[in-house]
Amino acid sequence: MIHATKEIPGYAYGSKDIQLSPVSMQELEELKVTVGWTDDDPIYLRLAGEVLEDQTKQIVDHWRNGIIASIPDLARHSQTPEGDRIPAYVANSGERFEQWILDTCRRPYDQDWLNYQLEIARRHTSASKNKVDGVRSTPYVPLRDILAFIVVINETIKPYLAAKGHSAEDVAKMHLAWCKSLQLQTALWTKLYMDTAHTPSEW
Amino acid sequence: MIHATKEIPGYAYGSKDIQLSPVSMQELEELKVTVGWTDDDPIYLRLAGEVLEDQTKQIVDHWRNGIIASIPDLARHSQTPEGDRIPAYVANSGERFEQWILDTCRRPYDQDWLNYQLEIARRHTSASKNKVDGVRSTPYVPLRDILAFIVVINETIKPYLAAKGHSAEDVAKMHLAWCKSLQLQTALWTKLYMDTAHTPSEW
Repeated sequence: MIHATKEIPGYAYGSKDIQLSPVSMQELEELKVTVGWTDDDPIYLRLAGEVLEDQTKQIVDHWRNGIIASIPDLARHSQTPEGDRIPAYVANSGERFEQWILDTCRRPYDQDWLNYQLEIARRHTSASKNKVDGVRSTPYVPLRDILAFIVVINETIKPYLAAKGHSAEDVAKMHLAWCKSLQLQTALWTKLYMDTAHTPSEW
Repeated sequence: MIHATKEIPGYAYGSKDIQLSPVSMQELEELKVTVGWTDDDPIYLRLAGEVLEDQTKQIVDHWRNGIIASIPDLARHSQTPEGDRIPAYVANSGERFEQWILDTCRRPYDQDWLNYQLEIARRHTSASKNKVDGVRSTPYVPLRDILAFIVVINETIKPYLAAKGHSAEDVAKMHLAWCKSLQLQTALWTKLYMDTAHTPSEW
């Protein structure tokens, strides 16, 4: 099951309100070649989706409360400028964070997926951060922090991928496919960070 | 031994000709926190340096001739606009690529290291690509391709890290430290890609 069983606030995957990605499907295909994408990767991502399905709440809690909350430089992105927690923002973006894990594993990487990558980037830049939830918080999450935190995400997902008793080989394949997808996604997100610059882009 | 035993063409680590990084040591420290850097990481990177020292030629050959050469979109960056190979460019940048592996493992991450990260970024963007070697080639390597290829680098380094008979646990720690460093480095490189845009930067 790809889709959420309940309504997730602000989750708009596939909606007509989502902008068209400035990246073409052809460019996505080229990027998949660079990342070393193989036919095995969607298979092992789907397996990861089965494995992670009932663990997403625990995983996001691990990332946010176990790690991000202890790093003020990161924690501030879900707080007010005065440093107050915004419980509804944390809850809603947490549910979207959970769904993103499953989308990473289960969605076909088609035009809707590509468009939603732009939307994810918009929600981390001044293009759209805070707007979906109507909150006052930091205007954007710096690109460097997103890139750096990917390492933590990739490392900490490992025990969750191994939690259902799959062989070490299968866990490694799930993990590699996961890492490829995350690097593919972050590469796509960087385009918006560069485009906000109205530049001769070297993306 | 950190330094190269022989002169590497265009390798200018620590030289007075290298520009000062726009990133402060304080920002680097914050980024290390985000990436989950621990006191173990430099230790395991140094161990990786010992392990990789006599394998760098083989590794770079694996990356460039084994992988990049078969992906036209990547191979073009060491070719002329007409698609011809530039042997001296390939040779010189290959030696620097080898040295970069050792610098990643052995250099202290100090101001010189930070400055050389800027220099590496300059040599991949229109700021300085081709200039050191005086060649005609693509004006820049797109950021997306650098980010995407990091996955391949991280995956293919594994057997080389394991090649000297260290325990699986030690190999995993070397690999994690390596992945943290590469993500840290690529995060730093993205700043120049965004700065070429003369923007209100969200780096």
